[in-house]
Parts: sequence; structure tokens; C-alpha cells
Amino acid sequence: MEPVPRLQRLLAHILPAANAERPLSSAPSAATGNRQIIVASVPKGSLKAVDFAPREAPAPEPAEGEVLVRVLAITIGAGQRAGLQGSASYAGAARSGVLMGGTGVGRVEASRDKAFSVGDLVVGQTGWQELAALPGNTLTKVAPGTSPATQLGALGTNGLTAYFGLLEIGKPQQGETVVVSAAAGSVGHLVGQMAKIKGARVVGIAGSDEKCKYLTDEIGFDAALNYKRPTFRDDFKAATPKRIDVYFDNVGGEILGSALFRMNTYGRIVCCGNASQYDTAAPGPGPRGIPGLLVNNQVRMEGFIVYRYGSRYGEARSVLTDWIKSGKLKARTTEYHGLVAAPQAFVDMLAGRTVGTTVVHVAPER
Amino acid sequence: MEPVPRLQRLLAHILPAANAERPLSSAPSAATGNRQIIVASVPKGSLKAVDFAPREAPAPEPAEGEVLVRVLAITIGAGQRAGLQGSASYAGAARSGVLMGGTGVGRVEASRDKAFSVGDLVVGQTGWQELAALPGNTLTKVAPGTSPATQLGALGTNGLTAYFGLLEIGKPQQGETVVVSAAAGSVGHLVGQMAKIKGARVVGIAGSDEKCKYLTDEIGFDAALNYKRPTFRDDFKAATPKRIDVYFDNVGGEILGSALFRMNTYGRIVCCGNASQYDTAAPGPGPRGIPGLLVNNQVRMEGFIVYRYGSRYGEARSVLTDWIKSGKLKARTTEYHGLVAAPQAFVDMLAGRTVGTTVVHVAPER
Repeated sequence: MEPVPRLQRLLAHILPAANAERPLSSAPSAATGNRQIIVASVPKGSLKAVDFAPREAPAPEPAEGEVLVRVLAITIGAGQRAGLQGSASYAGAARSGVLMGGTGVGRVEASRDKAFSVGDLVVGQTGWQELAALPGNTLTKVAPGTSPATQLGALGTNGLTAYFGLLEIGKPQQGETVVVSAAAGSVGHLVGQMAKIKGARVVGIAGSDEKCKYLTDEIGFDAALNYKRPTFRDDFKAATPKRIDVYFDNVGGEILGSALFRMNTYGRIVCCGNASQYDTAAPGPGPRGIPGLLVNNQVRMEGFIVYRYGSRYGEARSVLTDWIKSGKLKARTTEYHGLVAAPQAFVDMLAGRTVGTTVVHVAPER
Repeated sequence: MEPVPRLQRLLAHILPAANAERPLSSAPSAATGNRQIIVASVPKGSLKAVDFAPREAPAPEPAEGEVLVRVLAITIGAGQRAGLQGSASYAGAARSGVLMGGTGVGRVEASRDKAFSVGDLVVGQTGWQELAALPGNTLTKVAPGTSPATQLGALGTNGLTAYFGLLEIGKPQQGETVVVSAAAGSVGHLVGQMAKIKGARVVGIAGSDEKCKYLTDEIGFDAALNYKRPTFRDDFKAATPKRIDVYFDNVGGEILGSALFRMNTYGRIVCCGNASQYDTAAPGPGPRGIPGLLVNNQVRMEGFIVYRYGSRYGEARSVLTDWIKSGKLKARTTEYHGLVAAPQAFVDMLAGRTVGTTVVHVAPER
């Protein structure tokens, strides 16, 4: 069981990593260097790959209590875009010129924390770089045999977010209708499958017909709707004949507004993300019907951040592992190769061109 | 313990009463007549007294299972305005030409339900009229010695709404900050006092300096803010130095928007009413920051209608009675005399010219 991380540590998930500010040596060599990707400029409007830039830094030296990690793979999530909006979000405000933050899996190359040995596989807030020196108490060991992609997806923040958000806040009951937005995304595709495991009727909302086909044909959603179709509102109504008991919201905006009008009495809205408002400099207004529809239908709407459940990650990972092994939960990833691909992976993910968890392989796994 | 009323019965609270459609006799006499106030027209924009009209109807005859009630007093609440917006609300859609609905206290004049005897004091959905024939199973007996004003205020829907909304949804803890809007209103003035009883720091938001003075000087609020002052946003910030743990929202709109920005982590917003959007034909957009601020601060927002707790009214009334007797809860009313004063009382209440529960005395209590 991991300790609940402190706020500062949490923010490292998305904020530029602290060790980015260590001074560069005058002439890093290839053998001892550390390729990094920095935030070149805080994006104006939609994020572009040129908002990032590579740089060479010296290989970090672990201080007492720290561990030197060779990064194998990183994951990229929509919430990281919120951290780059330049205004306050749960990710704090971004600055240019520093290492891009993010979660990664790596192998221990040197350790000054007796809890870790060379060769251990760990997950932590590595940022977008090849080598990271991180405090041992911010790292978690990865169970042997777990691939970095699985660790970063279904067993990582995405899987835990889906698990606790759906089961602790949404609390779907047998036979209820669960709707999830960004349904083919890193969290959404897991939420829908978990809701099926719990016996709910599951409707996914996604941004292309291909994704909808994936949801119904490959991972068992009862229905899937392309919100870009002009018939979306009618499609939504038709797909929820018994209205909605749990709406797991990853996007906010107009889709949240539509869902509000379809909630059943005592319905629950799990506020997980606001992705429709991330990749812009000017977020839109809030949905109409707040608070009127909440009152009329006695609806509960609750925001959460997965770290709240930090003390229960072990329990959740055990359940998730069983579901994966039994084939009940099919974790999907879209994978990129090479650290330099990270900015494009980020752009693709925000543009809806990825399915499942977006993973960038940084070094071969051996 | 009362049964949880059925939906239709619930709606009678605000919708025009069903028996308004009984045919008028051709020439009602003064002795057998029943003065009523009907909805003359569904209001356009702000409600006006001329949107109502008096009419004479024959005295109703109770059918088997019904009770004939001489109305002593009625209460008027902001939620009734929602029922007159012509669009769907929890009160349903209004029509013109029918009796105005509402809760009243009356004395039984004739009974065809063996549970009630002539002379009993009862509360029910009498509507705005002198005499009502109502099914006995929709009536509740009033405890002997309870004045109609108290029954309609602190022991009625207002008191029960404050009690369950604050304690079951808001769940204030000792030392937390509770903010309530429409704080000098029928529900608000009780919410604030209950939060004080629970050991919270209480900040009220109201629409005049006089009301603010009442809140702090007469009923013990720690601070009160006039939202009409140009300094409101700064005043709000200054009055909530430890931010907000529970926001009991009676108004929606911009004040809800301001409160959202002041919520603490794990804060609770009790969505009780949306009064800022009732007295208009064109409700405004939803507050900015939904769902972003709910996610960032892990805030829960929940709408409710007091009837949800129908099976627990007895328990609540017992506690409320104790608080009133001990002087911990000071119930306030603004009282009008004569059924014909009801439309003006409604207009005054919506315009913020009343304090506490608005009560219209229809007949002397003897």
C-alpha cells in the first residue's frame, strides 16, 4: 500500500518536473547525456507539437534518498493539457522553458534509497526525459511481468481513476444505465467495461464512427454514439430509453449539458474531466440547467481526483489484475516509439486520433 | 409518521389544485360560496399581482374519503414561481384559469375520512381558497398548540427543507464554514441557525443591508453580505477566509458561480433552489466553472426535494420543536391578512421585501 502522496508530489504528475531546473553542464556527452523534452511555449489555442522542444541535459546524479531511473515508457493524458492552460487548474499553472512533466515507467540504474535495487521496475513522475533522479518515496515498484503499457494504462492512473470514479462515486447498480463520454479514451474505455462487469447497460459517447464500432464490437458496450453526427441529440435520446442513472463525464461542455437533461431521479454525475475545454485558451460557459436540473431530478454531481483514494490503490490493482487476466477487462493502448514522438502523440490524443491509453516508448525494455 | 406522498400529490403543492376544475354553480351565495384566487395568466417576465384574479366558486362537497377544510392560513414560497414559468420544472407546467396551488393550514368542517374529526387542525395542499375538499390521506394533523404560521414555517416544508438539506446533504462539521444564499428567506434563515447549532461559522447572503443586520444582530449569523453592493465579490472573499465547506444554494445564477470559486476541497453544495432564475421568462446560462471547479476541488453538488425524506418528517419535527422551544431556532414570518392579499404577498416575496416565511392569513383562528 502506497502512502497518499503530498500535493506537491501530485502536481508533479502534470507540472514540469522540479529537476528540470538543474543547471546544464557546458558540454554534455552522448554517453552521459539525458535527452529531455521541454515546454517551449505555453500553447495559445490548440496545442501544437512545436510548443515543445528537445534539449540535451547532463545525466542526473541521484542524491541521498533518490533513485536514478532509466525511462522505458511514458503515458500522456488529456489532463496534462489543463496543466498547460496557464491559469489555475488542479494541475497548477504551467511555465515555459522547463521539462514537461508526466508519469513514466522505468528501470532503476542506481539507487541511494535502500528500498530500491538496480534492475527494479518502477513507476513515478519521470517527466519527458530519458533519465530521472527521483526521491524513492515517490516511486512505486511494478509487479514483475507487468508490461510498461499495462502499468501505465489499466493498472495506472487511468485504471484507478475509472475504478474509483465509477464504483465509489457513480455506484452503478445492476440494470441501471451508465453513460460515459470520451468512451474510447484512456479512462472511458475502462469505465464502460467496468460498468458492464457490474451489470449495467452501457452507452458510450465518442468522436468517430470507428471508435463507436470499437466500443460495441470489441469491448461490449450496449450502444455507442458519435457526438459529431448531426443527429446526436436524437441518437442520445434513443440510446437511453430508460434515461441515465450514472453519467461518467470526461469532457464537460455541451455533452455534459445534454446528459443533464437525460438524468433519472437520484442520478449521479461523476465529474472526472473537462476535456472539451482543455485544448483552448478560452473555455466556454457552464452548462444550462445548473442548478435547476439538479434540483428537479435530485441529481448528485461530484468531482474527484484519483489521489483521494491513494491508500486503496493496492486493493484496486488486485481487482483490476484479476479482471484483466480473466479477459473481462480489455485494456487498449495506442503506442508511439521514441521520446521525440511525445509531442505528436499529445497532439494526436487531444485531436481524438488515439484509442485507449496513449503510451510513448522511450527505451527498449530488454 | 406520514407516508411518502405520490408524485401527483407532491406537485399539488405548487400546481393549480385539481378541484379547481369543478364547475362553478351559476349563482354562488355568500353563505355557501368559496372565494378562490386563480392564475389569470402565466406571467411574462416578472410576476405581477394582476396575473391573478379572484373568483367565487361553490363550496366544495367532500366525497367519500375526503375532508372539508376551512383554510386559516397559506404560505407562499419562491418555488411556486418556478411552477408558473410555463416550462417543465419540478413543479410541472402551469396553466391559466385554474386555482392557484399552495400549502395551507385549516380546520376540519366536515369529514368523510374516519381519521379526521370536525375541529381538527390540518395542513395540506389547500390552494389559494377559503374552503378545500381534500383526500384525507393527503392531510397531516397539526399538533395542538401549534400556530398556523409556525406550522407553515419552521415545522412545515421550509423547516424540513432546511433540516434535511443541511444535515443530510451539506453535513456541516464543527468549525466548518457554511454559506447560505437567500439567507433571510423562508429556508435560509433556518439553515443558518441550524448550522450555528452544529458549530459552524455561518455567512449569509441577502439582498439588503436591513436583512444583513437581521441575520447578524437577531439570529446569530457570523457575517452577512448584501449581494447588491458593488463590493460583493471582495466582501465574499473577506467573509470566507477559510473558504467554504458547505454552500446551501437557494438562488443559483451568479451567486452560485461566485461560491463555486470559494469552495474547499471536498466541499458540498446543497442545491435547494434556483430563485434567481424563477421570476423571469428567460433563465440565464449555467455558472462557469462547471465541471472544472468540481473536479479541481473534488466538490459534491447535489439537488434534492424535501419529499425524499417524507418518512422522516416526524423525527425532524420533534427536533425542530425542541430547538424552537429552547430558543435556539427563531422562526421568522412576514404575515399578510386576507386571501386577496396573496398575490401582493407573492410579488413582495419575489422582490425580496419579505423576511422569513411568507404567510397569508385567510380566516381568523377563533
